[in-house]
Amino acid sequence: MEALKTSTDVFFLMIGAVMVTAMHAGFAFLEVGTVRKKNQVNALIKIFTDFCISTVAYFFIGYTIAYGIDFFGSAPMISGAAEKAPEAYGKSGYTLMKFFFLLTFAAAVPAIISGGIAERAKFWPQAIASAAIVALFYPFFEAMVWGERWGVQKWFEGTFGAKFTDFAGSIVVHCVGGWMALAAVLLLGARRGRYRKDGTVVGIPPSNIPFLALGSWALSVGWFGFNVMSAQKVTDITGLVAVNSLMAMAGGLLAATLAGNKDPGFVHNGPLAGLVAICAGSAIMHPIGALATGAVAGALFVFAFNLCQNRLKVDDVLGVWPLHGLCGLWGGIAAGIFGATALGGIGGVNIWAQVVGSVAGAVYAFIAGGLVYLILKVTVGIRLTDDEEQVGADVAIHKIGAYPEDDLVRSR
Amino acid sequence: MEALKTSTDVFFLMIGAVMVTAMHAGFAFLEVGTVRKKNQVNALIKIFTDFCISTVAYFFIGYTIAYGIDFFGSAPMISGAAEKAPEAYGKSGYTLMKFFFLLTFAAAVPAIISGGIAERAKFWPQAIASAAIVALFYPFFEAMVWGERWGVQKWFEGTFGAKFTDFAGSIVVHCVGGWMALAAVLLLGARRGRYRKDGTVVGIPPSNIPFLALGSWALSVGWFGFNVMSAQKVTDITGLVAVNSLMAMAGGLLAATLAGNKDPGFVHNGPLAGLVAICAGSAIMHPIGALATGAVAGALFVFAFNLCQNRLKVDDVLGVWPLHGLCGLWGGIAAGIFGATALGGIGGVNIWAQVVGSVAGAVYAFIAGGLVYLILKVTVGIRLTDDEEQVGADVAIHKIGAYPEDDLVRSR
Amino acid sequence: MEALKTSTDVFFLMIGAVMVTAMHAGFAFLEVGTVRKKNQVNALIKIFTDFCISTVAYFFIGYTIAYGIDFFGSAPMISGAAEKAPEAYGKSGYTLMKFFFLLTFAAAVPAIISGGIAERAKFWPQAIASAAIVALFYPFFEAMVWGERWGVQKWFEGTFGAKFTDFAGSIVVHCVGGWMALAAVLLLGARRGRYRKDGTVVGIPPSNIPFLALGSWALSVGWFGFNVMSAQKVTDITGLVAVNSLMAMAGGLLAATLAGNKDPGFVHNGPLAGLVAICAGSAIMHPIGALATGAVAGALFVFAFNLCQNRLKVDDVLGVWPLHGLCGLWGGIAAGIFGATALGGIGGVNIWAQVVGSVAGAVYAFIAGGLVYLILKVTVGIRLTDDEEQVGADVAIHKIGAYPEDDLVRSR
Repeated sequence: MEALKTSTDVFFLMIGAVMVTAMHAGFAFLEVGTVRKKNQVNALIKIFTDFCISTVAYFFIGYTIAYGIDFFGSAPMISGAAEKAPEAYGKSGYTLMKFFFLLTFAAAVPAIISGGIAERAKFWPQAIASAAIVALFYPFFEAMVWGERWGVQKWFEGTFGAKFTDFAGSIVVHCVGGWMALAAVLLLGARRGRYRKDGTVVGIPPSNIPFLALGSWALSVGWFGFNVMSAQKVTDITGLVAVNSLMAMAGGLLAATLAGNKDPGFVHNGPLAGLVAICAGSAIMHPIGALATGAVAGALFVFAFNLCQNRLKVDDVLGVWPLHGLCGLWGGIAAGIFGATALGGIGGVNIWAQVVGSVAGAVYAFIAGGLVYLILKVTVGIRLTDDEEQVGADVAIHKIGAYPEDDLVRSR
Repeated sequence: MEALKTSTDVFFLMIGAVMVTAMHAGFAFLEVGTVRKKNQVNALIKIFTDFCISTVAYFFIGYTIAYGIDFFGSAPMISGAAEKAPEAYGKSGYTLMKFFFLLTFAAAVPAIISGGIAERAKFWPQAIASAAIVALFYPFFEAMVWGERWGVQKWFEGTFGAKFTDFAGSIVVHCVGGWMALAAVLLLGARRGRYRKDGTVVGIPPSNIPFLALGSWALSVGWFGFNVMSAQKVTDITGLVAVNSLMAMAGGLLAATLAGNKDPGFVHNGPLAGLVAICAGSAIMHPIGALATGAVAGALFVFAFNLCQNRLKVDDVLGVWPLHGLCGLWGGIAAGIFGATALGGIGGVNIWAQVVGSVAGAVYAFIAGGLVYLILKVTVGIRLTDDEEQVGADVAIHKIGAYPEDDLVRSR
Repeated sequence: MEALKTSTDVFFLMIGAVMVTAMHAGFAFLEVGTVRKKNQVNALIKIFTDFCISTVAYFFIGYTIAYGIDFFGSAPMISGAAEKAPEAYGKSGYTLMKFFFLLTFAAAVPAIISGGIAERAKFWPQAIASAAIVALFYPFFEAMVWGERWGVQKWFEGTFGAKFTDFAGSIVVHCVGGWMALAAVLLLGARRGRYRKDGTVVGIPPSNIPFLALGSWALSVGWFGFNVMSAQKVTDITGLVAVNSLMAMAGGLLAATLAGNKDPGFVHNGPLAGLVAICAGSAIMHPIGALATGAVAGALFVFAFNLCQNRLKVDDVLGVWPLHGLCGLWGGIAAGIFGATALGGIGGVNIWAQVVGSVAGAVYAFIAGGLVYLILKVTVGIRLTDDEEQVGADVAIHKIGAYPEDDLVRSR
């Protein structure tokens, strides 16, 4: 019986880990569809490479920072198979599976940043930034919120009467990723020709809407693993998390479709906006609250994307700051609103705790991201040369385009 | 123990819900690949938007009609978390998860219709039709078969000695969707230039076979969740349903490949034909019966598709009436044949109950679909203008094509 | 309790079966992206058709050879639903689900071969080869290793003090598939114009990197089902298998990215090389051993691919012999190295048993594959005519290209 329970927990977490891994294919295709053809290969390779770099960084350093446990014992020890295995690892390799599950969250941060800095960033400096963020800067914040380390959650409880609630990472993952990306985008500067000296804004159209849509679908579907499996134990599962995710996704899409006048970029980012916003409060809201949270996020994304690109002239290619940074921030706060019992929620949440924790996440991420990319900028440089950008990251970095057969035919 | 069982049920249904959600990406890409490039964006947006509209419609109205239970209590009540929560909701949010699972079935009906009316339907009228169907017309039939409401199944038992068996929806979902689509297609009329006045039939070639194939794979893979998780409780799972689905898929593909002379459209719709047909009887047939059921469906699809498009001149773009309407009908009847113990099946099924229930589903759907689309036709109109159809639904409705970068380069 | 355990086992295996089925879509898109446009439809159809042919072949013959149990009883008998059902079938259709799971492995062999012989093989002869391999030649080897039939594993135990360990099929599936493919490729000969008489090697560029990447992602994600569910009982699950798979994937990608100078073909085959190599030892290695195993595989793939294509002039289109044949062979041996307790592994493995079993798999497969394709070559022929190859397999075999709308526009 105990064995079955533990095994089912491991199985449960494994499905979550796999579903969020599949989301990374979604990140890749969302970027492939949005960038120009000459940068598609680079988009694909960045996401997959950063995922694998993150795996190594989080295994050897990051997870230990966040949860105070390392994997340097023998296989029977760390998987709980040996009789003398430390209890902390659990049975059936539970802690290893938990590492896998939480790695897929950690690796989302470089994947988010990737979409902002697309089409003009150097390859290896971005790889180094990914390693640094996933090894150090992401787990440092994660440790305080989810690892409950260093007394931060106790301070919240003492001060506000409730912990800072971020069930599945509106703040820890998305807000942090989005604000780090903003710092990186500002340090990198806009793409060549995006903003003319006379003040004109030049639109750079996406290359491939079906690929963009494929990315959106992969992210949306995988997101149910992101949220539902954040329970981490099968006996803590609840259909409420799934339905809240669904309702927020629907609210996000419908609001973005209306606010964005049926534009495919908005339609396909809308559900993601809703899903970003519902992560924090998905276990405590009523589904109607989730629908509202998602709808606000969908509209917020459309408004902030246009503001960011056309007024503020911040060349955040995929709009990852509006999507993850702002909708994440909204999600952290929304958990404090719609999670309250007065609005039909489960309760146990405090609005000021949510505001403080959420804003702290944004500020921390902006500073940490700024630090990482600033150091890289003044040392190795983070931007392609003008010529490289002109020819495209694919040929400049990878010596090949996305459609080599077509290039060959064309060159004849 | 009881907690583990309930949790595992919720986990089990969640996987089903996620897998069928992923099928909707499959519906989208099957349509993207089949329509012309100028209508690809519209195909993508219709499917995703209709899914989200269906979510709202089924949450607030449809599910209540089908199963007589609503979600207007507080979150602790409807998720079963509160001590006083009504038993009907179950623990761990079981009923919420069941709603999610069954929503993904309900939303398949607009997705099916979408493929028939592609390339010339207006956007918002189709959105309204989706809402009406998922809120009212689909759950009304579902209530009688799966909700066991209003004594209909009792009438079947009294009359035929067996309930009307439709384990996973050959009739409730596919046949209903397919016959509603036929009504919509007839009311909409053929695409411009499809059938000339001199009687010539003009073929309109698909745009992208890899996307069509991607859609077929996504549907086929997700379908195992559609069928296996229709058990709804993990302790009711059986490998028989999975293997019957597999065998019907194989039979459908192989028969369609032979009958369709290796044409990629037939090859990739063949497994879907087999899977449509096996839904009803997947829990009661022998795998060899399932193989036969699938093979008949695969051949039926090829034959009926050609008949429909070339002889009857019904411009059902993806062939959804042959695929879902006819193969679904065949599936309802096949459950009565191969489910019988005489043919190695599990039994408990009556052929005449199957014939009556299946035909009733087709007739009901054709009338209900006709009603919905007729009202829309005479009020707001359901068809794009000739100019809009000529320029394509993408630019007409969404102000952008599927490959904007290419369009920009071409326009220079 | 017992019912819950069995049901969860069936559920567990079902997820594995579905995930590996999804890998076949990955095989299809990896091939679609790598071959020229004129052979994309054929790539898609080969993979799906061979999967369905494999289903029938393995159901009626192959599984019985491997495990000595057949499915010719009635549905209640073979699904364990009847009271008198033989114990061997288990309850809840466990054995049927196990058949499904293991079929998805068996069907990987034709899918592997497909990538090697792409762009110039006839359709039906390849279909016949698939049937013969999955019905007879694959299960014959599987029977000895996994079926523990005919005393082979006892011989290993007696001789080496340990069974031949191949947890998830580095040898049984990948090595066997890769070496069969090598035989087929040699018998088929290189594509027209690939190697000139003057010794020049003419590169044939891939058509579509995004599709290639999509295939790589689908394979990588599904692979976790391939490995983790190879435990076959949920109570035998361990997070160790998942994390070892992850680490090997990361090691494979990173090594291939470095060795292959960020070329997208190498970057996207690298994780697959790591995953091929980790199958055998994923349940017994330490994650750091898995990282090393994967890294060696990633570098080995790059080196062997270049050697094979440019020096040995073996026109193995996707490099399936280096990928599955050589990295599989390395994986069988690596299990004997990094599985040892001395290197932090779980133990219970012998290096010489691994060398003997692994090499035996390669030799057997090369001979068996050679036999199948030689017989087909001298009887019905296995190669398209020069004209057919020139026009492409799509138009030659399927009478249509991958982008029919574009072809129509171009032909006007």
